[in-house]
Amino acid sequence: MTPSSPLPAAPSRVAMTTGDPAGIGPELIARLLTEIAGDTDHPVVVFSTEAELERGFAQAGTGADRDAVDRAGNIEFVDTGLDFDGMPVAEASERGGRWALDHLEFALAAYERGEVDAVVFAPLNKSSLHHAGMHENDELRWFEKRLGVTGVVSELNAISGLWTSRVTSHVSHRDAPALITADKVLGVTRLLNAYLVGSGVAAPRIAVCALNPHGGESGKFGREEIDEIAPGVALAREAGIDAVGPFPADTLFLRARDGDFDGVVTMYHDQGQIAMKMIGFDGGVTVEGGLGIAVCTPAHGTAFDRVGAGTASVASTRNAYLLARSLASTSNLTA
Amino acid sequence: MTPSSPLPAAPSRVAMTTGDPAGIGPELIARLLTEIAGDTDHPVVVFSTEAELERGFAQAGTGADRDAVDRAGNIEFVDTGLDFDGMPVAEASERGGRWALDHLEFALAAYERGEVDAVVFAPLNKSSLHHAGMHENDELRWFEKRLGVTGVVSELNAISGLWTSRVTSHVSHRDAPALITADKVLGVTRLLNAYLVGSGVAAPRIAVCALNPHGGESGKFGREEIDEIAPGVALAREAGIDAVGPFPADTLFLRARDGDFDGVVTMYHDQGQIAMKMIGFDGGVTVEGGLGIAVCTPAHGTAFDRVGAGTASVASTRNAYLLARSLASTSNLTA
Repeated sequence: MTPSSPLPAAPSRVAMTTGDPAGIGPELIARLLTEIAGDTDHPVVVFSTEAELERGFAQAGTGADRDAVDRAGNIEFVDTGLDFDGMPVAEASERGGRWALDHLEFALAAYERGEVDAVVFAPLNKSSLHHAGMHENDELRWFEKRLGVTGVVSELNAISGLWTSRVTSHVSHRDAPALITADKVLGVTRLLNAYLVGSGVAAPRIAVCALNPHGGESGKFGREEIDEIAPGVALAREAGIDAVGPFPADTLFLRARDGDFDGVVTMYHDQGQIAMKMIGFDGGVTVEGGLGIAVCTPAHGTAFDRVGAGTASVASTRNAYLLARSLASTSNLTA
Repeated sequence: MTPSSPLPAAPSRVAMTTGDPAGIGPELIARLLTEIAGDTDHPVVVFSTEAELERGFAQAGTGADRDAVDRAGNIEFVDTGLDFDGMPVAEASERGGRWALDHLEFALAAYERGEVDAVVFAPLNKSSLHHAGMHENDELRWFEKRLGVTGVVSELNAISGLWTSRVTSHVSHRDAPALITADKVLGVTRLLNAYLVGSGVAAPRIAVCALNPHGGESGKFGREEIDEIAPGVALAREAGIDAVGPFPADTLFLRARDGDFDGVVTMYHDQGQIAMKMIGFDGGVTVEGGLGIAVCTPAHGTAFDRVGAGTASVASTRNAYLLARSLASTSNLTA
């Protein structure tokens, strides 16, 4: 809504799916819905079936009350009509993977019809997805392809007070260096900046990792810092982003953890993931960045060993929802 | 000493040098000597000069008493006779680098004459060493060349309860994969095992990192796990070492931090260093592994900004000394 808008904007609507139905997704969604039921400023659309919801609320235990959620007014169930009968529990399966993808498809179609503004999905299971025929290296590529995105995308990881983005992600160590270009560094830095702003950080402070040990020591072991990363950081600064670096990754993450930066641009998957998991992923959120629509998911997995035990924490799913809600009102989530 | 040895073995003698004389090395050595003075079971030989010692004890402040150290009986000073007049303070210089290398040379020569059994050196400064003409990528290569070592070497990092070794170290990200072979994985695992035993861990539990994200996902992004690392782990197990892996690095280090393993074999520099610095390097020790002689140094740098301030912690230097003493009595420190 711009200041001159004649009418109040409609509130953003967040779509939700349960992810892999065999995991802790259905119970996490049930518990989250119970928490947010009645928050009428924030409408939610849940894509599921009666049978799945019944199982999810049962698995969640006494804390989750389906009737109260139904009466609350802000939560709409869309019954996708798919067959849940005999859906596996606590194991990877083709059916689970297919269910997860089909329900994401319902949510994205609703987005394309202008009915929802953001998507939250509970954890997926990689084996189930592979069984179901998903051949992309990760979910982000699946979304990218499905939505026909041509700009820069990056998986973003968010914990309290710190985000990361990735110049390369699910590619081999050997293949990563050739994918690191100044333009890609710029794009992923812009993306991180846009999402940080969208999440409520007014003036994000961003640091960019080096690729090589000690940052390559002036080209002694590796030239990517000189040839690509530093030029990419310079381009980001010219674009008005408060980005600095490249810095050797091992010491940079100590500074980031201690609050010197709001976001860190990483060059490869484990560079960020080793650090972020050490800092602590409790409550962490994964954001599929650059899709145009806010898409968020808890940073943990399907936890097949804990399904129905009532011990799975809803913190990451709650944070994924809150973040999606915040990002949904941001006009520009692209690089 | 074997059980049947007719005479008690002479106690191990630890050589010490101050590292870069412009940094906090001289004051750390002065403080450590004050702590260990009078421990007559553990003789120490310090290679330095009167002028340097005078400066070091003065920088260390009231806690360090040169006379008490001299009277203690277990600490021998060897005056190297080198010119300390006007030695820079708190800055990198060719003179500082040359001093550091020359004094290490005195210690190694004493080792070769059978006069000392281990070496501890206070922090070096990379710029000073480069000014002084050291062209190796790191100190380990310098020691390797100096001592004519032909076996497997690896920098080892030790913090309380956890050690790492490295299959590759100061090489570019791009060059690392080709250097990872099953034999090298075996060698570096054996080395880590030998040093863990030498440090007092009776039955080391060792985990080996994967190289690629998610461990390559069965060859989907990278085959090093299949072609080299897993075979290297199998060879280590055949050699009687309790080694497991390869495991994706981002989750492995959580288990290692939580006590599941005594040592982790890493594939590249930042893989271990990001994690170890996150866990906390306070008191950390760097070990130049595979040289035949125990060589230990504190894990921190010369801290030029703190020289003479009396605030530098002696913890890492103390641990380097204690570890060198323990390792000095180990017969086999090679892979």
